[in-house]
Amino acid sequence: MLHTAQKIELDHGGGGYKSWELLKEIRRILKCKTEWKNCEDDAAVLPTETLMKTGFKLGKGNLVFTTDAFIVNPIFFPGGDIGKIAVCGTINDLSVMGAEPLGISLSIVVEEGFSKKDFLQIIKSINKVSQKAKVPIVTGDTKVMEKGKIDKIEITTAGIGTAQNIISNNGAKPDDFIISSGDLGDHTVALLSERFNYKTKIKSDCKPLNLEIKKTSRYLNACKDPTRGGLAANIVEIAKKSKVKIILEEKFLPYKKEAIALSEFLGIDIFSFASEGRFIAAVSPKNIKKVLGILKQFNPKAKIIGKAEKGKGVFLKTNLGGLRPIEMPKGKLIPRIC
Amino acid sequence: MLHTAQKIELDHGGGGYKSWELLKEIRRILKCKTEWKNCEDDAAVLPTETLMKTGFKLGKGNLVFTTDAFIVNPIFFPGGDIGKIAVCGTINDLSVMGAEPLGISLSIVVEEGFSKKDFLQIIKSINKVSQKAKVPIVTGDTKVMEKGKIDKIEITTAGIGTAQNIISNNGAKPDDFIISSGDLGDHTVALLSERFNYKTKIKSDCKPLNLEIKKTSRYLNACKDPTRGGLAANIVEIAKKSKVKIILEEKFLPYKKEAIALSEFLGIDIFSFASEGRFIAAVSPKNIKKVLGILKQFNPKAKIIGKAEKGKGVFLKTNLGGLRPIEMPKGKLIPRIC
Repeated sequence: MLHTAQKIELDHGGGGYKSWELLKEIRRILKCKTEWKNCEDDAAVLPTETLMKTGFKLGKGNLVFTTDAFIVNPIFFPGGDIGKIAVCGTINDLSVMGAEPLGISLSIVVEEGFSKKDFLQIIKSINKVSQKAKVPIVTGDTKVMEKGKIDKIEITTAGIGTAQNIISNNGAKPDDFIISSGDLGDHTVALLSERFNYKTKIKSDCKPLNLEIKKTSRYLNACKDPTRGGLAANIVEIAKKSKVKIILEEKFLPYKKEAIALSEFLGIDIFSFASEGRFIAAVSPKNIKKVLGILKQFNPKAKIIGKAEKGKGVFLKTNLGGLRPIEMPKGKLIPRIC
Repeated sequence: MLHTAQKIELDHGGGGYKSWELLKEIRRILKCKTEWKNCEDDAAVLPTETLMKTGFKLGKGNLVFTTDAFIVNPIFFPGGDIGKIAVCGTINDLSVMGAEPLGISLSIVVEEGFSKKDFLQIIKSINKVSQKAKVPIVTGDTKVMEKGKIDKIEITTAGIGTAQNIISNNGAKPDDFIISSGDLGDHTVALLSERFNYKTKIKSDCKPLNLEIKKTSRYLNACKDPTRGGLAANIVEIAKKSKVKIILEEKFLPYKKEAIALSEFLGIDIFSFASEGRFIAAVSPKNIKKVLGILKQFNPKAKIIGKAEKGKGVFLKTNLGGLRPIEMPKGKLIPRIC
């Protein structure tokens, strides 16, 4: 029986009896169907018979592997929580590489005295998004730190996927269109509004991208999800690694009016606002119609935001016709959002 | 140029320019030879041509996946540091499953103001053990938390490996010998001595086990590394899952005299003392000589510590002939050691 006043105790992370009990509760919640075995052992096991069923061929495919640490404040925010963002973040890092996620590992470090109800709420949220994305949580670790040694909770996820073809961020070509899979920056708006008690209807855009990228991946020459550092850091990385110039158009900017207003009010560059469920990509002119057609089924706001050409650097073409350089964010960034 | 007074700043984790700079320094240090590609991308990629070269066959092998979070106090201790232990922990979790590690992910959460020299020292230590074990660090994440929001540094590693045959912890059979790959508990002794300023020559046993387990894995019916919860938690788990009784013999106990003295002085059960570079295993009588012969090449203290038989529970047969039950540690455990 769970009493809402129950707290996480140090012994829940000690490796003894209490650790086992907590682990059993976590496992009862995580129910995504999986063909992984030994999930209660030191490591999870995926028999390669399962891989063969997915059409995976040795010598033609790739294993893809990623990790991310999540330390969000607040832990619960409009549109998600630290658990949802941790799972989405790893699914999305695999997806933007063109990989289909096979399984996720879940490592939690939690502060002694943390509400057990909130803890299990986070596990439920993890389960929900794992089921929605059809990516199972297959192995994990839970550690408890003494009070004051960590700020509530930190989650690190890692993920494995397979890809026939890798989408790198160095594949954008001159004449490619630059697209966004929807409005950007809503995750930062949601977190800032919660932290500064600012009223907004904007919720975090946090969501898994694997299904929409799977349907379009063969047409994406370069792809990234603009999380930390926002559009600025990620579009600069694509331009730099692909050795192209990218011109974004102010009139096509993928931000909600309210997001822009908030960025101006706080004096924070809108281009550094992060998303946790959007991607930007470079697409050849011959495929652009097909790609946007598919993406609009997932989000009607998917659109072209600019174009690549020969040269270097990233610029914003303003409505007045001027060119303003967009650079990798330097100096103080916005409060940590993931 | 590194100035020793340099500190980790919040912007080193912000996703902007400073993050890039720190990442470049980390990458310059991590030099283990790897066939993984795209290590600077959102995820690392292992072309399956590489897997084929290792003799890996689809339909006959298994992918193995694990993760662990490390929050050690002190960060530097006799015989290792948080970086070494994080890499060894994940290599060892793969190894005790019978898997050969392919690559490790490295996620670091560090406190603003942490010494940059110490940070890079930890990265160097990670590189050293990764090279020794021949397991590359292939992908990672670095986040910085505001001062006071984390206790110095936390590292989470995840790892992928492949195994033709899985060693589970449910495979011990009646008549199997129970062995230890060396003296146990030295990791806890080293950490306690550092924390309580107690003088000892004992160093942490922290080391990668992949090479010695690779040479013996086909003969191991069950295998675990006695980290958190020590021998007590891990031998109980093997007995329970394998549905056998296990009798350990006091006269063969794998602990140094000084470790036992410390455990008695502090009133902490020696069976809960942790190791970070030892394994325990169940081995059939017909293979025991071969296995010990191999293991003694790695550590002359490898030895038989007990035997499995029909029944249930774990007992210590004392020198006087009595039987004392050994149970999963309950209640307050020793200070966190990994």
